[in-house]
Amino acid sequence: MNENCLIEVIKNITKSRYIGDDCAYLPDLGITVTQDSLVEGVHFNLDWTTPYELGVKAIRVNISDILASGAEPAYALVSLSMPSKFNDNFVEEFYKGLNDGGSNLGGLPSVEIVGGDLTGGDRVFISICMLGKVNGRNISSRSNAKSGYKIVVCGKHGSSAAGLKLLEKGQKAPEKLIQAHISPHLFPEFALSVSKNITEPYAMMDTSDGLGDALFKIARASNVTLNIDFDKIPYDEEIKCFKDWEQLVLFGGEDYGLVAALPESYIPDDAVIIGEVCPKERVPLIIKKSDKIVKYSSVEEFTFNHFS
Amino acid sequence: MNENCLIEVIKNITKSRYIGDDCAYLPDLGITVTQDSLVEGVHFNLDWTTPYELGVKAIRVNISDILASGAEPAYALVSLSMPSKFNDNFVEEFYKGLNDGGSNLGGLPSVEIVGGDLTGGDRVFISICMLGKVNGRNISSRSNAKSGYKIVVCGKHGSSAAGLKLLEKGQKAPEKLIQAHISPHLFPEFALSVSKNITEPYAMMDTSDGLGDALFKIARASNVTLNIDFDKIPYDEEIKCFKDWEQLVLFGGEDYGLVAALPESYIPDDAVIIGEVCPKERVPLIIKKSDKIVKYSSVEEFTFNHFS
Repeated sequence: MNENCLIEVIKNITKSRYIGDDCAYLPDLGITVTQDSLVEGVHFNLDWTTPYELGVKAIRVNISDILASGAEPAYALVSLSMPSKFNDNFVEEFYKGLNDGGSNLGGLPSVEIVGGDLTGGDRVFISICMLGKVNGRNISSRSNAKSGYKIVVCGKHGSSAAGLKLLEKGQKAPEKLIQAHISPHLFPEFALSVSKNITEPYAMMDTSDGLGDALFKIARASNVTLNIDFDKIPYDEEIKCFKDWEQLVLFGGEDYGLVAALPESYIPDDAVIIGEVCPKERVPLIIKKSDKIVKYSSVEEFTFNHFS
Repeated sequence: MNENCLIEVIKNITKSRYIGDDCAYLPDLGITVTQDSLVEGVHFNLDWTTPYELGVKAIRVNISDILASGAEPAYALVSLSMPSKFNDNFVEEFYKGLNDGGSNLGGLPSVEIVGGDLTGGDRVFISICMLGKVNGRNISSRSNAKSGYKIVVCGKHGSSAAGLKLLEKGQKAPEKLIQAHISPHLFPEFALSVSKNITEPYAMMDTSDGLGDALFKIARASNVTLNIDFDKIPYDEEIKCFKDWEQLVLFGGEDYGLVAALPESYIPDDAVIIGEVCPKERVPLIIKKSDKIVKYSSVEEFTFNHFS
């Protein structure tokens, strides 16, 4: 059973009208809210990540989802479970990372940590819940892409997954790719310039599970087909040292870039147009590279599955 | 370094004005919010807890904190990490437990599960964030106890810790104590009758870390001394099969009863008065049992510490 099937089980039991996007939009409270976990040995390795870097990344993972929703990241609750042998230095460095990772958000106030808990455990486990304020902005949904919209992205794609591969092989260069994995960039200006100005429904997601996965989810939820031009997707040139670099650009996770489906008139200045939304065809995602066209009826074989 | 010291480290780094109570009160959003984790091997054991029971308990742990804040439990986000060998039946039963555990809240609507995430991991790890609506109620704080207030409780104390001891010894009776551990009761009517009517500042906490721990925290935060009459504290008679039953009543955790410091005129009908708030003496907590008086300058040696 894979993650997507398990989420269907959960939807059926909870009958929740909120589950579907990475953030839940709660109009009665004027917020969007998300929760993401990082598990030692699954999402990070303390051999190559310092507690400070872990804190930075843990909070950015959640800020990224709030930004993609169109809201303004505001409050965080942090659950930290760790072995009792860890000392207060771990906690101190981790929290300094959370603080710094939640600052400098394109003119927005820093994220405030308002609660959470500390527990013992064999492994480090982090779960952060984040609340974003709507503040009159237009909230996105992956089901809002419409035929005729453009597909735009920000950030470089595949670098984080490439950096992880280097770390796993014990390599320390190219440094740029490693840093993309350890300390991902956020794109608050992009997100907020979209959600502040747009008056029409739109889709926006972060690329935490890979660009291809986000594109596929938008296409499926919106009942459309996305036509993408691979050669337009921004990536770091250094990634070409990998044989499978094209797969990394398309399906590598943890970049925390943004991808959006927008009417052309609302595209931010710094966005890169990589394709367009078309009426539904037989497959949800079509990617053209030079003269080769690949049609994806599923992307599961290329994406990370916790329960394969 | 113990938990309380680590929390001081966190307060110093985050400079958060919200950390101090089990729930953070966010007036701008009209909510209180809390997050609590349950770690396999630390908080529960799958040998004696079914996935359904785990779901019930996991959500009640958080509802209990929201009730103690005085707010109405409304929304939950659930992070579940589990080994990939677990099947969809585990997820299904766990979520059924969450649903049922979040229902029948003294006339309030059921808690809605609006998000969360699913990840792999060696062990089951659960972290739930819960949002409670203020809805015009008066929100509690552990620093609000004032000299002259009465200390009141609801629920039976020590039963859950006694039940855990039985389970650890492989015993199956008394069933009442075991059930108190597996499937704790909540007290929404008590909590909501307080927060709906009271116009003065008051303190209310759940007894998740033990009654004595909650009393001590209220006394310290409010800068007062609490005088408690042990013989007034409600407990199940079955607990007397334990030699150290008095310690279990005072310091046993996970009962999820409530303890409050209230002006006399606001005490709910079903509350039991166990003591009163007095001007600060040398020690924060004084407990009288028959003709014996114990003065507590600390309760650390009696309470659970994740990082001892």
